Amino acid sequence: MTKNDQHDLPVNPDLVLIGQALKIISGKWRLYIILLVGDETRRYSELNESLPAISEKVLAGELKALVALGVLDRKVYAEIPPRVEYTLTSKGRLTLPILKQILEIGRIFNY
Amino acid sequence: MTKNDQHDLPVNPDLVLIGQALKIISGKWRLYIILLVGDETRRYSELNESLPAISEKVLAGELKALVALGVLDRKVYAEIPPRVEYTLTSKGRLTLPILKQILEIGRIFNY
Repeated sequence: MTKNDQHDLPVNPDLVLIGQALKIISGKWRLYIILLVGDETRRYSELNESLPAISEKVLAGELKALVALGVLDRKVYAEIPPRVEYTLTSKGRLTLPILKQILEIGRIFNY
Repeated sequence: MTKNDQHDLPVNPDLVLIGQALKIISGKWRLYIILLVGDETRRYSELNESLPAISEKVLAGELKALVALGVLDRKVYAEIPPRVEYTLTSKGRLTLPILKQILEIGRIFNY
């Protein structure tokens, strides 16, 4: 039972929700970084090594944005050298299955 | 059984598939237009009326891009005035359930 079934007039999708979702996945790297972290705890150095194609400045900016959006948690350990680790937040984990499916869209249109 | 289960090193997501998927959903309007067409046949005039916030030029450009990407089918009927109708292609229809779920990402981060 949905409010919108079998309507003839177009039902406008919620632009606020679309905008919010696109903030998380837009840009070439955000979705990639989220999928790379996945269910694991990833050190900054690991992420940096896994992303040779982007500069450290871009990576740092994207990580900062994903932390600000509430997708990633960042923990800094006061070691020498300092250790910085990223994990998905609980909201980030909730979206992971959907984000993985976005690859499926690419697969459908790639072949 | 997947190739990547229980790995310790990050498994790089497929950038080509991510890029392909983002072409379909990126920008403020593509996802919106696809969801607006949905399972229906939509006249250009209907879409235009449902999207008062974007100019006709932007709408025409986005529709053209979605046709070129293979997401939308465009049919022109030689009537007076000419009738132009859009439907999702079969590939577009295949992605519709995933695209609807993207709204869920917005919902998760909106609250």
